[in-house]
Amino acid sequence: MEGEKVVVVGAGPVGSLAALYAAARGATVNIYELRNDLRNEETTPLNFTKSINLALSERGINALRSACNTDLLDKILDRTIPMHGRMIHFRTATGALSQQSQAYDVHGRFQRSVDRGELNKVLLDHLGSLPNVNFFFQHKMTGADFRKKKAWFEVMDKNSTSPSGRAKEIEVSFDLCIGADGAHSATRHHMMKYARMDYQQEYIDCLWCEFKMPPSKAGDFAISPNHLHIWPAGSFMFIALPNLDKSFVCTLFGPVELFFKLENGSDPDLVSMFDKYFPGVTTYIPPADLVAQFTRNPHLPLINIKCSPHHFGDSVVIVGDAANAMVPFYGQGMNAGLESVRVLFSKLDSTPNRAEALTSYTAERAEDAHVIADLALANYTEMRSSVTSPLYKWRKWIEERLDKYVPSWGWATQYSRVSFSNMRYSDVIKKSKSQKRILTVLFLAAAAAGVAMPVAGVWWWLVLGTRFRQHQKAFNLTRT
Amino acid sequence: MEGEKVVVVGAGPVGSLAALYAAARGATVNIYELRNDLRNEETTPLNFTKSINLALSERGINALRSACNTDLLDKILDRTIPMHGRMIHFRTATGALSQQSQAYDVHGRFQRSVDRGELNKVLLDHLGSLPNVNFFFQHKMTGADFRKKKAWFEVMDKNSTSPSGRAKEIEVSFDLCIGADGAHSATRHHMMKYARMDYQQEYIDCLWCEFKMPPSKAGDFAISPNHLHIWPAGSFMFIALPNLDKSFVCTLFGPVELFFKLENGSDPDLVSMFDKYFPGVTTYIPPADLVAQFTRNPHLPLINIKCSPHHFGDSVVIVGDAANAMVPFYGQGMNAGLESVRVLFSKLDSTPNRAEALTSYTAERAEDAHVIADLALANYTEMRSSVTSPLYKWRKWIEERLDKYVPSWGWATQYSRVSFSNMRYSDVIKKSKSQKRILTVLFLAAAAAGVAMPVAGVWWWLVLGTRFRQHQKAFNLTRT
Repeated sequence: MEGEKVVVVGAGPVGSLAALYAAARGATVNIYELRNDLRNEETTPLNFTKSINLALSERGINALRSACNTDLLDKILDRTIPMHGRMIHFRTATGALSQQSQAYDVHGRFQRSVDRGELNKVLLDHLGSLPNVNFFFQHKMTGADFRKKKAWFEVMDKNSTSPSGRAKEIEVSFDLCIGADGAHSATRHHMMKYARMDYQQEYIDCLWCEFKMPPSKAGDFAISPNHLHIWPAGSFMFIALPNLDKSFVCTLFGPVELFFKLENGSDPDLVSMFDKYFPGVTTYIPPADLVAQFTRNPHLPLINIKCSPHHFGDSVVIVGDAANAMVPFYGQGMNAGLESVRVLFSKLDSTPNRAEALTSYTAERAEDAHVIADLALANYTEMRSSVTSPLYKWRKWIEERLDKYVPSWGWATQYSRVSFSNMRYSDVIKKSKSQKRILTVLFLAAAAAGVAMPVAGVWWWLVLGTRFRQHQKAFNLTRT
Repeated sequence: MEGEKVVVVGAGPVGSLAALYAAARGATVNIYELRNDLRNEETTPLNFTKSINLALSERGINALRSACNTDLLDKILDRTIPMHGRMIHFRTATGALSQQSQAYDVHGRFQRSVDRGELNKVLLDHLGSLPNVNFFFQHKMTGADFRKKKAWFEVMDKNSTSPSGRAKEIEVSFDLCIGADGAHSATRHHMMKYARMDYQQEYIDCLWCEFKMPPSKAGDFAISPNHLHIWPAGSFMFIALPNLDKSFVCTLFGPVELFFKLENGSDPDLVSMFDKYFPGVTTYIPPADLVAQFTRNPHLPLINIKCSPHHFGDSVVIVGDAANAMVPFYGQGMNAGLESVRVLFSKLDSTPNRAEALTSYTAERAEDAHVIADLALANYTEMRSSVTSPLYKWRKWIEERLDKYVPSWGWATQYSRVSFSNMRYSDVIKKSKSQKRILTVLFLAAAAAGVAMPVAGVWWWLVLGTRFRQHQKAFNLTRT
C-alpha cells in the first residue's frame, strides 16, 4: 500500500480507523466526509450522529489496538465508563421499586460506555497529526467509476458554488476506495452499479427516541454508573448508558404503534405510561422534561442491512454500517464495524493480489456480518422480555458455572464470546449450537436420572429389602 | 385526476400505459425518459431494451384493453404471433432428433410472442397524438423531493450543456409521480429516502445471451412459429420465440459457471456443447454465426426485486419492474407490469383520497408481486428440467382433464390461471394449494383402492369362492 492513494468515504469512527490503518501502511489517505468536521461544531445538538453512547467491547478495542499506540488507546479507554452488567429495573408483586444486577461475565470482563462523538474526535485529532492524511469535509459523493478508479464529490460549502449557481464538483482518482459512509452509503449505492450485489434492507417494527437523564441534585450519577440499565416491558423497553459528565443517555425502543399512540396521546398519558412500565424513571427525569424531550427529539427507525459482495474488483470495498447495518440490541454495531477494518487489512496484508484479498475479505466478512445482524435482532427479544424469564436466568447460570469452574472445557456463553472475544461471529454461533446440544443431553440425562433414582429405590426396597428380610428371618431362625 | 399534473418516469411499455391511463382521466401527463425516442432510432441494435421478444397474455391484454380503443388493441395484437404451447426438443434413446408439443391450455388459449420495441412504438405513437401528453426524452432523474412534489432531471442531450460545461438540470413539479423506470429505477432510489422501504434484490445464478435464428432458405420460419421452443438441459436451457419477420429470438440461460467455461473455451467447444444439449439448433443457426453471436452479444445477469411499500404519501408510486422485477421464466414480467397499472388506476378511481388509494394499492400489489416473483423463479426449474419428467406430465394431464371434462368444478392448472386469467396472483397460489391437497387425497384414495381391490378379490375368491364351490359341490352331490 506504500505510495498508493487511498480514498476513505466517511469520517466516522469506522472510516477514521480505516484511514489510520491505511496511513500506517504508507498510503496517502484522503478522507471525504459529507458533514462538517464535528470538532468545529460549537454546540453539540442532540443528533444521533454525535451524542449517542455506544458499547465498546473487545472486538472494537482489539481493532483499535492494532492501529493505535498505547497512549492513543489509553486516551480512548480513559473516556469510557465500565459497565459490569445489566441492571434490570422492575416493580415487585407489592408494587415496590426493585432492581437486579446481572453481571455480563463470570471473569469480570465488562462493556464500556463511550460517547461516539468523543471517540471520533480522538481518532480525528490523531489523523490530523499524520503527514499523509488529508480531510475533505462537506464533500458529498455524487458518482463513481469503479473500473476507472475515479469518484466525484460535490463540495457542499455554500461559499464554493460556481458562477452558474451550482455546487462545485471535483473528480478524485484512487488506487483503493474504502466506503465507511454508513447505512445509507453512497459508496455502496455506486458500487451496486458495478458489482452484482445481493442486497437486503429491512425496517423492523421499532422506533427509538433519545432522552437525557441529568445527574442527581448532589451532582452524582442518578443511578449506578457501572451498569447498562434496562426497564424491560415485553414488547418495548427503556435503557440508559452512563456518560462521563454523570448524566445518562437513555433510549425508548418500541413498536411503531406504541409511538403513534404516545405521539397522539396526552402528556399525562406519556408520564403514566412511563410510571407504569419504567418504574423510577420519572424520579430521575422530571415529567415535564420527559414530555419535552419526547416532543423535541426525533423518533427514528431502525434498519437492518445485509449485502454481498462487500467489494468490487480491486478498487472498492465497504466496511461498517455501509456493508452491515444492524439493530443496536447486541451493542455490536460499532464493534463489528471496527473489526471489519481489522479483518480487511489482515487480508490486504496477507494477500499480495488486491482483488484476491478483497474477494477473501467478502467471503469471510459477509458470512460473519449476516450472523451478527441476526443475533442483534434476536437480542431485542432478550432485552425487552427474556431477561426476566426464569428459564433464561437458569441457562445463563448453568453456562456461567461451567465457564467458571470447568475452564478446561472451554465453555462460555454466547454473549461473552460475542462481547469479550475475537472469535468469528459465525464460529460463535457454531459453538453455541454445540453447547446447546450438550446442555440438552445433560438435561435429559438429569431428567432420566431423576426418574431412574426413585425406580432404583423401589427396586432396592423390593428386591434387596426382601432378601435382607429373608436373610434376617433365616438368621433369626438360626438364632432361635 | 382532471387538470392534475402527472409525471411518468420511463417511456417503456409500462410507463406508456400508465401515461395512457392518466391522460384518459384528464391529467396533463409529462413523460421523462432517460433514453432516446426509440421511434427515431435508425438502427435497432441487438439491445435487450429494444429487440427482445416477450410473452403477452391475458393480464397484459386486459390492462391494455381498459386503456386502448379497439383499433389500437387490434393494432397491437396484429403484431403478435400466437404460441399455442411449448415445443420440447430432445434426442431419443437412439440419438434421433425429436420434438414434443405441450399445449398451454385445454381450452385453446395461447400466449402471444411480441417484440417489446414494436409494442412500445404503437403506444408511443398513440400517446403522441394526445393533446395532454408531452415527451421529454434524454432526461435523467437526478433527484426528487416527494414531500414538496418536485423532481429534478438532467438533460442528457449533448447540445444542451450549459456554459459551465455541465448538463442542464430542470426542476419539475407534479401532483403525482409514477415511476416506471425499470429494475434500476431512479424513482425508487429517491423514494427510498422518504418511504421506510423494505427492499430486497438478488442476482440468481444465471446469465443469459441472446441469439437470432434466421428464417429458412425458403424464407419461412425455420421451426414451428406457433410454439415457444425449449431445449431443456437440466441446469441450463435454450429457448426460441417467433418474430413477425419469420426469424426467432433465442436465449441461452445458464449458470455463471457454464458461461465462464464457454467464454474461456474454444469455438468448437461451444458448437459441440450446442450439438450435445440443444439438438438441431446448429442446423438453424450455422455454427460460425452461433459463435459470432455468443461473442458479440452481451452476457447479462438476472435480478429479482421485491419491495414494499410501492408508494410514498400521496405523491409517488412505482409500477412494473421498478417495483417488482422478476426473472423471465413465467413470461409474466411485462404482463405483471401492465397489470400493476390497471390495479393502480382501479384504486385511484375508487378511492377519492389519494394517499389511501396508494396505500390500498401497495397492500394488494406488494403481496401479488412477491408471489409472481417466486413463481417465476420456480418456473426456471420447470422449464429447464421438469418439462421432461413423467410425474410433471402426469399431473398436468390429470389437471387438464379435470379442467376440460368437469368445468363445473372450476379446476384449472396454475399455469392457465397465471397466464389466461386475471385472478390475483396470491389467489392463484391459494387455489393451486387447495387443488394439490385434493389431488393428493384422490391419489391416496386411488392407491388405497389399488390395495383394497386385490384384497377384495382374494377375499371374494376365498370366501365367496369357497361357498360357491361348496354350493357347487352340494349341487353336484344332489345331482349324483
